[in-house]
Amino acid sequence: MSYNITDYKPYDFANRRHIGPSPLETKEMLDIVGANDLDDLIEQTIPVDIRQKKPLQYTPGLSESELLNYMRDVSKMNRVVTSLIGQGYHDTFTPPAIQRNILENPAWYTAYTPYQPEISQGRLEALLNFQTMIIDLTGLEVANASLLDEATACAEAMTMAQRVSKSKSTVFFVDEACHPQNIDLIKTRAEPLGIKLIIGSPDDLNEDDVFGAIFQYPGTYGHVRDFTRIIEKLHSTKAIAIMAADPLALTLLKEPGAMGADIVVGNTQRFGVPLGNGGPHAAYMATKDAFKRSMPGRIVGVSIDSHGNKAYRLALQTREQHIRREKATSNVCTAQALLAVMASMYGVFHGPLGLKAIAQRIHLKTTKLAAGLEKLGFKIDPNTFFDTITVDVGGLQSVVIKSALNEDINLRAVGKTKIGISLNEMTTDRTLVSVWRAFGLSPEDYPSDSVYNLPKDMERKSDYMEHSIFHMNRSEAEMTRYMRRLADRDLALDRTMIPLGSCTMKLNSTAEMMPISWEGFSKIHPFAPKNQMAGYDLMIKDLSKKLCEITGYDAISMQPNSGAQGEYAGLMTIRAFHKSNGEEERNICLIPMSAHGTNPASAQMVGYKVITVSTAQNGDIDIDDFRSKAEEHNDKLAAVMITYPSTHGVFEESVREICKITHDHGGQVYMDGANMNAMVGLSQPGEIGSDVSHLNLHKTFCIPHGGGGPGMGPIGVKSHLIPFLPGHSSQNTSGAVSAAQYGSPSLLPISWAYCLMMGSEGLASATKYAILNANYIATRLKGSYDVLFKGPSGRVAHECIIDTRPMADYGVSVDDIAKRLIDCGFHAPTMSFPVSGTLMIEPTESEPKAELDRFCDAMLGIKEEADAVKNGKYPKDNNPLSNAPHTMSDLVSDWDRPYSREQACFPPGSFKIDKYWAPVNRVDNAHGDKNLICSCPPMDEYLEAAE
Amino acid sequence: MSYNITDYKPYDFANRRHIGPSPLETKEMLDIVGANDLDDLIEQTIPVDIRQKKPLQYTPGLSESELLNYMRDVSKMNRVVTSLIGQGYHDTFTPPAIQRNILENPAWYTAYTPYQPEISQGRLEALLNFQTMIIDLTGLEVANASLLDEATACAEAMTMAQRVSKSKSTVFFVDEACHPQNIDLIKTRAEPLGIKLIIGSPDDLNEDDVFGAIFQYPGTYGHVRDFTRIIEKLHSTKAIAIMAADPLALTLLKEPGAMGADIVVGNTQRFGVPLGNGGPHAAYMATKDAFKRSMPGRIVGVSIDSHGNKAYRLALQTREQHIRREKATSNVCTAQALLAVMASMYGVFHGPLGLKAIAQRIHLKTTKLAAGLEKLGFKIDPNTFFDTITVDVGGLQSVVIKSALNEDINLRAVGKTKIGISLNEMTTDRTLVSVWRAFGLSPEDYPSDSVYNLPKDMERKSDYMEHSIFHMNRSEAEMTRYMRRLADRDLALDRTMIPLGSCTMKLNSTAEMMPISWEGFSKIHPFAPKNQMAGYDLMIKDLSKKLCEITGYDAISMQPNSGAQGEYAGLMTIRAFHKSNGEEERNICLIPMSAHGTNPASAQMVGYKVITVSTAQNGDIDIDDFRSKAEEHNDKLAAVMITYPSTHGVFEESVREICKITHDHGGQVYMDGANMNAMVGLSQPGEIGSDVSHLNLHKTFCIPHGGGGPGMGPIGVKSHLIPFLPGHSSQNTSGAVSAAQYGSPSLLPISWAYCLMMGSEGLASATKYAILNANYIATRLKGSYDVLFKGPSGRVAHECIIDTRPMADYGVSVDDIAKRLIDCGFHAPTMSFPVSGTLMIEPTESEPKAELDRFCDAMLGIKEEADAVKNGKYPKDNNPLSNAPHTMSDLVSDWDRPYSREQACFPPGSFKIDKYWAPVNRVDNAHGDKNLICSCPPMDEYLEAAE
Repeated sequence: MSYNITDYKPYDFANRRHIGPSPLETKEMLDIVGANDLDDLIEQTIPVDIRQKKPLQYTPGLSESELLNYMRDVSKMNRVVTSLIGQGYHDTFTPPAIQRNILENPAWYTAYTPYQPEISQGRLEALLNFQTMIIDLTGLEVANASLLDEATACAEAMTMAQRVSKSKSTVFFVDEACHPQNIDLIKTRAEPLGIKLIIGSPDDLNEDDVFGAIFQYPGTYGHVRDFTRIIEKLHSTKAIAIMAADPLALTLLKEPGAMGADIVVGNTQRFGVPLGNGGPHAAYMATKDAFKRSMPGRIVGVSIDSHGNKAYRLALQTREQHIRREKATSNVCTAQALLAVMASMYGVFHGPLGLKAIAQRIHLKTTKLAAGLEKLGFKIDPNTFFDTITVDVGGLQSVVIKSALNEDINLRAVGKTKIGISLNEMTTDRTLVSVWRAFGLSPEDYPSDSVYNLPKDMERKSDYMEHSIFHMNRSEAEMTRYMRRLADRDLALDRTMIPLGSCTMKLNSTAEMMPISWEGFSKIHPFAPKNQMAGYDLMIKDLSKKLCEITGYDAISMQPNSGAQGEYAGLMTIRAFHKSNGEEERNICLIPMSAHGTNPASAQMVGYKVITVSTAQNGDIDIDDFRSKAEEHNDKLAAVMITYPSTHGVFEESVREICKITHDHGGQVYMDGANMNAMVGLSQPGEIGSDVSHLNLHKTFCIPHGGGGPGMGPIGVKSHLIPFLPGHSSQNTSGAVSAAQYGSPSLLPISWAYCLMMGSEGLASATKYAILNANYIATRLKGSYDVLFKGPSGRVAHECIIDTRPMADYGVSVDDIAKRLIDCGFHAPTMSFPVSGTLMIEPTESEPKAELDRFCDAMLGIKEEADAVKNGKYPKDNNPLSNAPHTMSDLVSDWDRPYSREQACFPPGSFKIDKYWAPVNRVDNAHGDKNLICSCPPMDEYLEAAE
Repeated sequence: MSYNITDYKPYDFANRRHIGPSPLETKEMLDIVGANDLDDLIEQTIPVDIRQKKPLQYTPGLSESELLNYMRDVSKMNRVVTSLIGQGYHDTFTPPAIQRNILENPAWYTAYTPYQPEISQGRLEALLNFQTMIIDLTGLEVANASLLDEATACAEAMTMAQRVSKSKSTVFFVDEACHPQNIDLIKTRAEPLGIKLIIGSPDDLNEDDVFGAIFQYPGTYGHVRDFTRIIEKLHSTKAIAIMAADPLALTLLKEPGAMGADIVVGNTQRFGVPLGNGGPHAAYMATKDAFKRSMPGRIVGVSIDSHGNKAYRLALQTREQHIRREKATSNVCTAQALLAVMASMYGVFHGPLGLKAIAQRIHLKTTKLAAGLEKLGFKIDPNTFFDTITVDVGGLQSVVIKSALNEDINLRAVGKTKIGISLNEMTTDRTLVSVWRAFGLSPEDYPSDSVYNLPKDMERKSDYMEHSIFHMNRSEAEMTRYMRRLADRDLALDRTMIPLGSCTMKLNSTAEMMPISWEGFSKIHPFAPKNQMAGYDLMIKDLSKKLCEITGYDAISMQPNSGAQGEYAGLMTIRAFHKSNGEEERNICLIPMSAHGTNPASAQMVGYKVITVSTAQNGDIDIDDFRSKAEEHNDKLAAVMITYPSTHGVFEESVREICKITHDHGGQVYMDGANMNAMVGLSQPGEIGSDVSHLNLHKTFCIPHGGGGPGMGPIGVKSHLIPFLPGHSSQNTSGAVSAAQYGSPSLLPISWAYCLMMGSEGLASATKYAILNANYIATRLKGSYDVLFKGPSGRVAHECIIDTRPMADYGVSVDDIAKRLIDCGFHAPTMSFPVSGTLMIEPTESEPKAELDRFCDAMLGIKEEADAVKNGKYPKDNNPLSNAPHTMSDLVSDWDRPYSREQACFPPGSFKIDKYWAPVNRVDNAHGDKNLICSCPPMDEYLEAAE
């Protein structure tokens, strides 16, 4: 215990916690890896050529306590007022049991996307509840498990409509009563795809002109109308009818399904998910059964396991990018799983009766509010409304809005002379009084009665949410236990490392998570006046500055709310750049074979033609192939999309050359930031020669994966691209790629807190440890598993691909290994990406040596079992690997296997007391899901298509 | 789904959640029970004579959202400033991972006291960590798993010293440098026990006079001195040396063990537990091995299970009240388990190096602070200090204190001319500057350097916390997983009902729990100026008013911080009342046989002689025996202690008569409030004839049990007793029973929130449902288990005792049933209290029908298994009951049992997928722990002693 006080720095209690290996462990690990110290290892790993010249130097790290004090001050710079702005966002009450047991529970928020269904039955059930609720509320037949936001969902619905419509038209009709942000996104998406838009009143819609149309329900100004006849007309010309509907309104109003709608989208934010300045929230999409294979996003389905028991899984996984290949029209990848889970639990908690009661109270308050305003002689529009009215105030608009602000209320300015008011679950009678006062009504005129004013023919006739799950009796004891049981069925970071290559499942520390629950961040409406967001502004500016320093870029756009959206936004930026140079014809995008599957999908969404570049023997990009293709397409070269370090887990030496070749041929370099966790503090994309990158804040910058979303994919660009970054309607600019200006801004405190607590030194240290941990695993597995790709000095970067293909020769599949790891209490590494039949392991810096060792022990144990299959000790179809995962039911059943129950249950690496039990046996994935990895499919299918 | 909007009230989303059965379930259950409606059932259950005349009517219930808004406003009425008052309480930083994963995690806070060790291995391990840490820091040999607060611990140490000392003296020496609240509690406790106190300087101590002495270390004014020589002198006369020591200081200072101390007590609050206006915090006690059997409180020990594997359990459980019977000198029952767990995790998180670094930083800041003040010419006392200095400011005391307040800093007024300043973990350089400024130091004179000034001979030489648990590498990933693993080993309310008779394990709702984490409640120093506590004042006044209305009493004292402390405080109040009437000779306390074991223990602590009253055949108090004993002791009758409804689970009809007889003979009635959950809104102790009661806020009023504490036991009294309620040094009054004026005030938001959300109607409804649920279980078990005691119309109150003694005839013990219930995923009911060999079941109102049915299914399944033992199908020593609980290891081992693995693993009631696995087999409890129930032992041992 000899100890020198200077060894401890003011921030050690924060900083040390992010990094797994202790100083002592670090020494042991370096010995095993064979490096003198961390810097020596980095010397061997990162080519000197691309190493950062001077260290990051923005600030020293803060302690957790300093951080939380500072963040609290910043959160208080945001002014929390009662926002009655509506426009798709409404204040809501998150039931405390849901807040604490889901949003603030690491068992839920640190989980990964449920691609491994056996360890994801809990969240799959919650998401299935979500889908069921949406199907019931919309009156349609199938729903997905969330989309990024309502505006994106509208754009996705438009492109889906084009896919499924038998109409030849390239024109799409947009109801002028759609929320402005929805219209904006539709515009952005339509242009590169050559879709023409007509924006107008549904009454003027000519069904002969269009392949589809979208209507807002209720309209952005409050109108509630029946679209049945218009939809009939659309169907008569084989056009597709889309409705963007408020799910709460649907508890009272005639449902879209009853009007004949083909696709319904919307936002479930008001089902208990905080405003958060615009996100994250779970958007939804529902459609008819006939169209389900064309629907973007993830769908949870019910399947069976190998014993025939019910098991949930992601269904139709193959219907997206990788089956449509070069025709992919959606790059949807990240969803909003955590928020969909919250919204579904809100539905389970309240049940249909509770939801209806909430909706009715809101409606009654709205009629009461209108009555008061009518007493003042204002004209209220519309006559038929749910929760939103529009008041014509003539020249008094700014006066009334200011007067409401004095009452701490935000109203919506509509046009130059109107004011929009949307009520919500949190609206009290006191709120009504404040609004009346803002308009000048005197107390004696306040109405006391509420009148239900929905016309009979607009009332919902059908029942909904009749499934028993929505009829639990809703005692909190029962609800809490239900949430606990579901959580216990899943494996998340709070129980085990999740060594998913390319997904960077690092620590999401509690101190980083705490501020997002604070009202200063959570209760801000995205369209509130900018002067109410000084805290957000400060944060976004400072985080942008830090990310610029880290990446070597000159500006950051926070708007994309997923990695794939970042790619899309980045390519749109490049596209606009070329256009401004008069080089609109540039439309070729070179993508190496090892790229993430979203890359080509995003490229196709901006109208680019994807050309795949081969891989050399050593896993690097085939530079000759690259050069020749760049030359071949010289005049048309728009962009090159590369990932660095490569998805083969190596720092390629040729990266500068690739950038140079690209630029020489007039192209722009898009560097995918998925592997940024191997670069922070040590190397900068912007310095290497890249023009634009997205950063997965949910990978490198600690936003938790939430069981399949939320995420954030801001893009960094060099200065020449700044003028072409996405705009936003709230700033009177165009080209938006997300509904809210900053995507999912209420997540940003997490990444900011991470940067603030780590300090520049800590950030670089994290990168070094990420590389150490990966090389430690590679070293420990040596002899049992070959590492497929290494750098010249034999090092891997922050992840390594191990070759499990030899095992396939004797009947042990990569799936067998993945499922056997479940018995050991682990989430499998990334499977078959970027090379089929292999495993890509990324431990991240946050794993301590003990956990790395436990994983290596498990992998070595599996190798021994595989050898026993090879040697004929076990039959190919009845061994611990083929039968994995094992369940409790297996254990209590008759046992006629060539290995013991003990071996089945307690393989190397598994805990004796704290064992995780898969709730189901291996799930039957007959539909080619085997290759699905990190939500993004392997490139070879693109290659195939390109040839 | 037919539905009328008026069916839903504004607060249903709060209110309905507390009560388990849905309206539909209620109807089904009433049918089974055989009552027309709830009121009909109550008619049959509660004697009309004692029923409340008019319903409670304080307020309608608030919704969760209204509640949280209101509570937030109230919390903000408390002024949060930087308190440098010290005096045993110091601001601290709760590591976020501990806050969220322990304090705010229902898996930890809803757990019960670990009397069933097989389902408590997680918290037992955490508490063992606590003990180990305390043993190491103090340098003693054994420590308990927490006491209520440091002042109580001092008083307990004094009486313990008297027990273990071989000195004949009745005099106890108290260092005048002890914290004032410690001295106060020692005074309160000493007087009725006939202990004389000498309060003075240790230098004047005459060891010939005393049986023991207590010293504060460091002293309340900051002095650090070596007590080695004084302790040697004490030992020379067989006197016992006690030290009250700050555990953080012990990381730097020579430890008490090295000075020869026999007993060490203290407060672990500054190990990450918020100030909370004085509590709850975990006090500790450590002693020499020779004295361990005399130590009060719970001790966790390491034992083995039936397979010889390591297992934790509460050790020496029999050394307290029930083996000492009428000689019991402590009534310690509730501990501060949750807070001890937090403090121990703080120790695990920081490790010895981290704790030392924290202590050194504080010390260095203190020397720096002193240097600045010395520049101004102030005399700093003492020369040798750790974190506290005293400054003589002459006539400027109030000026400086006010000037500091302007800087948002609380200083301590010491005497008339001095100021005390204690620094802590949260003290920043900015804080020092503020203090200096308050004293008038100008910036150019601020010292910049810190000097370590502890003399070598006061420095700690020995190592501590060398156990590997304190040397986890402290990455947050590892810590989070450790806390999760421990939590998963235990069964708490978040997974199952806990049907513990007399313990009332009802829902602790999340909305009730949230406010305690808010800084307006958590960051208040107990000795801050009263005008900083307007929020606490409002809350305490309003909660008191509500509790008065509920109980029919005229005033409430919030000071007792456990039920047993409430009994003690109530009896002290009665004692003072008799004394004021010149009737000091009244010292007889009548207690029925069925009373909680703490009753006689508390009576003996105030110097009363306990006389036990017999039980009649029907379980009621034997009224003739009672009358004759009251008559016999007419002039000496001080008090009668009864529980209502009785611990036999029945509303006794004779309660008014018992009160009358007591009063007729000059005695006072103490009505134990443990069963208040069967009375709220329907019957009032104060109206029935009782003079004083304690209320277990951690039973009836929703404070969670925290795995064995915290608790709160405020007392209600009729008006004639008000003048004799406990005082407190902070109010310049005496007779304190807790260190802080309001006991553990930061818990009160929970009970207040419960009352506010339920409203008066909801509270009465809860009581009715508690009675319905108990009668439902009694009915469903009919035919398999006999209910031992019922009221005249065949009803039980809120709990029922089932007779499992017949099973013992054929070898199935009550223990077998309890352990088999673990296999079913349940915590056992209360065992062998108040009748040996029986089970007392209390479901509470919060359990939905499905959970009650699951429990009944489990119990009926157990009956069938017992029948199979009876019929010889299973041997007595090898059957599902005798082998319970079954572990995973059992399942994977060879199986040579007369029942299947499936039967072992999945008995009726158990979940198929979400099964709970006991981490150990049955724990070996050879030491007579079998009768330990709800922390309070059965009365028949007292009866035995009295005869």
